[in-house]
Amino acid sequence: MNYRCRLRYEGTRYRGFQKQGNQENTIQAKLEALLNKAFSQEVEVYGSGRTDAGVHALGQVISFHLQGNIPPPEVQSTMNAFLPEDIQVLSCEQVPERFHARLSAVGKTYRYEVHIGDFPDAFRRKLEWHVPKLPDMERLRQAADLLIGAHDFRGFTEKQGAKKNTLRTIKAIDIRQEHVSDQESRLVFTLRGNGFLYHMVRLIVGTLLEVGWGTKELTVLKTILETGDRSLATLAPAHGLYLIRVEYKE
Amino acid sequence: MNYRCRLRYEGTRYRGFQKQGNQENTIQAKLEALLNKAFSQEVEVYGSGRTDAGVHALGQVISFHLQGNIPPPEVQSTMNAFLPEDIQVLSCEQVPERFHARLSAVGKTYRYEVHIGDFPDAFRRKLEWHVPKLPDMERLRQAADLLIGAHDFRGFTEKQGAKKNTLRTIKAIDIRQEHVSDQESRLVFTLRGNGFLYHMVRLIVGTLLEVGWGTKELTVLKTILETGDRSLATLAPAHGLYLIRVEYKE
Repeated sequence: MNYRCRLRYEGTRYRGFQKQGNQENTIQAKLEALLNKAFSQEVEVYGSGRTDAGVHALGQVISFHLQGNIPPPEVQSTMNAFLPEDIQVLSCEQVPERFHARLSAVGKTYRYEVHIGDFPDAFRRKLEWHVPKLPDMERLRQAADLLIGAHDFRGFTEKQGAKKNTLRTIKAIDIRQEHVSDQESRLVFTLRGNGFLYHMVRLIVGTLLEVGWGTKELTVLKTILETGDRSLATLAPAHGLYLIRVEYKE
Repeated sequence: MNYRCRLRYEGTRYRGFQKQGNQENTIQAKLEALLNKAFSQEVEVYGSGRTDAGVHALGQVISFHLQGNIPPPEVQSTMNAFLPEDIQVLSCEQVPERFHARLSAVGKTYRYEVHIGDFPDAFRRKLEWHVPKLPDMERLRQAADLLIGAHDFRGFTEKQGAKKNTLRTIKAIDIRQEHVSDQESRLVFTLRGNGFLYHMVRLIVGTLLEVGWGTKELTVLKTILETGDRSLATLAPAHGLYLIRVEYKE
């Protein structure tokens, strides 16, 4: 049977989602070890995509095959019973045999949280990027609008060995400002697209904030898109980023 | 000059607020070491009261004397610059010489957060007590009402060597239920009183929940108040508790 599960995790303690060589401390390695042991079979887990070390998820999706007709609620409760407290399986269902968490995905939504104030928030220091200064919201939104649509985002990712397709479509960038206290506020960026390249959300948010603060010109976004010059972009740290939803056709 | 500062901290990494022998890893020891170093003088920090290991604060109050006329905003920003990211000074002001954070306090408010669901919340596992079952809210509120007013709370604290005054007045216990998701909710207890004994809030919340779940009778609260029998009470864990406000006359 083929299963699709939705996961929530705090990425702080992990070296990211994806297994790398013999690094045990990844979400994928934890999940496979648990499934192998709980159901006494060799299980391969596919994620909708990697999340980097320190990146969180409210709706990561995984898929895997299990032998035997184990009901999905039993798979979910078994996983939750053995997973550490910073990973939860929110839902689990049976899907057609050909379903694959990464290959079947048609869209993704990420959130990036920025805390603004004179000092960080003790309770959320691993869950948001703390910066001292509020950007100009008008400029920030203008900058974001320049990225909407289909573009070659090779300047908003890291150079990789193989020639990869770096064309992606961003459907929406929503920026919400929340009141936290008299001295503090929070910016929540929500980015929806058909897919995102390695570091793409973090490079977009980091660069948008520079424009909002006035430390980069509005034109820098067009320049990066046109020239693909990654060195003009700024990388926001991992710990403000959340994968919140993965979309599938069916 | 005498200073009063309001603090926020996540208690997870600390052995509580109060210095104990040569244990360095307390909030008080951190604060004194910082002030001694930053202002080159021996400083003694008074807290409004201890918080146990793992207990948090949104509004702990401290007071201390400093020589030299250092403006309070400078004291605050110096402290925030050198404090670890899980402690912040939210405000700082000059107060009369005789002010003492503990001795001048006339009231306190604590909050206790309980998460209810089939599995914990990855992001808040150190910030709330996770339990699987929602208590009967009606019974829970009935039980809470029995504790309002002036009582001898010796059954809601740990036996201590010296004869202490264990009479306290609870002014209000508010219990709010919040929706978290289809599968999860949160209970937020807010307790306001003229003061609380060692473990008193945790013993009250733990016992109230037992009554709400039906694992203890409603009458147990009166029995504990009358007999002072601590063994009938249940201690909720430290990590759901927050000191949120300290009241002073002036």
